[in-house]
Amino acid sequence: MKNNNLNLKELNIKYKPLFIGTKKTKICFYDSTPDITFLLKSKQKKLFVTDQTIFKLDSLQTFFKNFTELKTTNTGNTPYTIYKNEKHGLIVIPQGEEYKTIDTVLSIIKTALDFSLTRKDIFTAIGGGVLTDITAFAASIFKRGASCEFVPTTLLAMVDAAIGGKTGCDFDNYKNITGTFFPAKALHIFPEFIQTLSQKEFISGFAEALKTAMLFNKHLFNYIKTNKEKILNRDKEVIFKIISFCAKAKAKVVEKDLSEKNIRMLLNLGHTFGHALESNAGLGKLTHGECVAWGISRAIKTSQILGLCSEKYYSEICEVLKSFGYETANIHPAFTDINKIILTMKNDKKNSSSSIRLILQKNIEKNIITEVSDQIIKQALES
Amino acid sequence: MKNNNLNLKELNIKYKPLFIGTKKTKICFYDSTPDITFLLKSKQKKLFVTDQTIFKLDSLQTFFKNFTELKTTNTGNTPYTIYKNEKHGLIVIPQGEEYKTIDTVLSIIKTALDFSLTRKDIFTAIGGGVLTDITAFAASIFKRGASCEFVPTTLLAMVDAAIGGKTGCDFDNYKNITGTFFPAKALHIFPEFIQTLSQKEFISGFAEALKTAMLFNKHLFNYIKTNKEKILNRDKEVIFKIISFCAKAKAKVVEKDLSEKNIRMLLNLGHTFGHALESNAGLGKLTHGECVAWGISRAIKTSQILGLCSEKYYSEICEVLKSFGYETANIHPAFTDINKIILTMKNDKKNSSSSIRLILQKNIEKNIITEVSDQIIKQALES
Repeated sequence: MKNNNLNLKELNIKYKPLFIGTKKTKICFYDSTPDITFLLKSKQKKLFVTDQTIFKLDSLQTFFKNFTELKTTNTGNTPYTIYKNEKHGLIVIPQGEEYKTIDTVLSIIKTALDFSLTRKDIFTAIGGGVLTDITAFAASIFKRGASCEFVPTTLLAMVDAAIGGKTGCDFDNYKNITGTFFPAKALHIFPEFIQTLSQKEFISGFAEALKTAMLFNKHLFNYIKTNKEKILNRDKEVIFKIISFCAKAKAKVVEKDLSEKNIRMLLNLGHTFGHALESNAGLGKLTHGECVAWGISRAIKTSQILGLCSEKYYSEICEVLKSFGYETANIHPAFTDINKIILTMKNDKKNSSSSIRLILQKNIEKNIITEVSDQIIKQALES
Repeated sequence: MKNNNLNLKELNIKYKPLFIGTKKTKICFYDSTPDITFLLKSKQKKLFVTDQTIFKLDSLQTFFKNFTELKTTNTGNTPYTIYKNEKHGLIVIPQGEEYKTIDTVLSIIKTALDFSLTRKDIFTAIGGGVLTDITAFAASIFKRGASCEFVPTTLLAMVDAAIGGKTGCDFDNYKNITGTFFPAKALHIFPEFIQTLSQKEFISGFAEALKTAMLFNKHLFNYIKTNKEKILNRDKEVIFKIISFCAKAKAKVVEKDLSEKNIRMLLNLGHTFGHALESNAGLGKLTHGECVAWGISRAIKTSQILGLCSEKYYSEICEVLKSFGYETANIHPAFTDINKIILTMKNDKKNSSSSIRLILQKNIEKNIITEVSDQIIKQALES
């Protein structure tokens, strides 16, 4: 069942100084059609967590038909339906970033209590980054920490969100402002899921792959540039290769620095600008990747303004971004209030003082973490 | 300012395998009148968290008068008032276990966002165990983990709750069902606060001191027995000694096992019975200590039924408990439904299977962790 054609089958991330959750994340890659019924065979009880879109996915019906419906209810503003089989529970929540809320996290915890899960049991998320983030957050605060595992179904989750233990939910119009560091015990990656994504979702996830290439792997960056058509047509081999590369690169980073004290901060390239846009445009209005891609263009513009990178590099990055359909204009048409963007950036959780910390680049793979003044940020949003 | 008469001035708990929050908890003991204005001098921004009762405490007016009122508002069902000085913020929440809710945790997080706290800033709890638990929980999930420090004002918090990084809040009628392990950076202990406690609060906290003595220190247990009058009169020297002993004992335990994988479980003596009573009597109806003390009597009764300890030891423990006014009847008059108690015990977060894990004793300092069947538990509640 596991992939035999491509080189990456399994990857282990080991966390040395970790006292909760897990000591190791096992990442398994499968080149088959997604069949996850094997997850039902488990000594521990599981609470499966998915959303309404994934629940209807053709390829997962052999799995979901094992469950029978119990009831539909709600916690605060989150409606959800509960199912069960002989041993495990399943909760189906609404799809979308607008349900990445504390209410949804509590609905998962409430369901886990209803199924009498203990802290030795497992929360299994089947879905995209929203699903994996909130499920792991719920697991991390359930009885002070149960375990979790993921079946990521989006490109974004496979190359980025599901790897590295960042959990959380939005609150008070801030993205991921509440959360924990709590890695999953296992990830089961079926790149085949990529074929089921909408174009918007696919392109959103691809932004994080592009970011990873810019940060750590110029060969991957060139591979992406020369395989544009195949990528946009979701050629299986090319997509699998990109996913493997990115998962490996991210695993290497979080193994060294899980709690983002140093090297992991690099992964925020494009994210401080991106989050500010995402928050202000209204959570869920633009995709995460669209915002990050625009944020990357602004981060490289900032690098150019500060004389760190050449105008040529800035142009090259903008060209690549545009070729995949991303916005690179100085201010994104979805939200044009420059002062509000700067204010939100200041409140970003990655800032430790009043100036704004950004990830910048001198060139591909040449990364810099630095504090930047309001004036420079403003320039990058005006030119 | 620090205590010069008694031997314990400072205690450091070092956590080796810890990657978040802090590597060390510094516990400072002061034998002076509580003056915490020194906490205002800080490089980092702070959000002070307290409750309406503590906010009115005479001895803290020199501290609180540094703040001016901003507004009164609410998050869900929690009303709160916000104050500020030139640098720091202060949130005053309602007093009591019934406000140990997610809404209150979110009110703290919302206020921290309003004051633009970063993950390098500090949440400072001034209050009892409820305050320290929810403040540390808020800090632990704020931007995936800011720092926290405590000024415990109750005996319960000084000898138990504030030490060892257990954070949390109640949810869905379960005590502390959501939470994290997240130790405070510093504790500032002023035993003088004990003089301001109501008799109910004092006696509640004392139950945890008695528990600590039973588990780890027969000399302390005998000291308690022979100093009953002085304790009930809150003799300063005796109280200081008991606090120092208990803080030291707990520090030793959590240093070895922060996340409760082995030895720390012992601290749950009396708690599985106790929590079940506390939940069912209605959160906030009985004090935590009253419930724990009753739970200790049931745990030792269970030990006797299983032939682990003598009837004499059981009688001795009941005598001591009764001499401090605790209930030791087979079933607590505040909640008499035995089956419901057993059901709640099964759902306790410390259970990893369907049988019920209890801390039992062969004798003083002779502790046992074991799984006990429903039938035995029932016997302990019927005799």
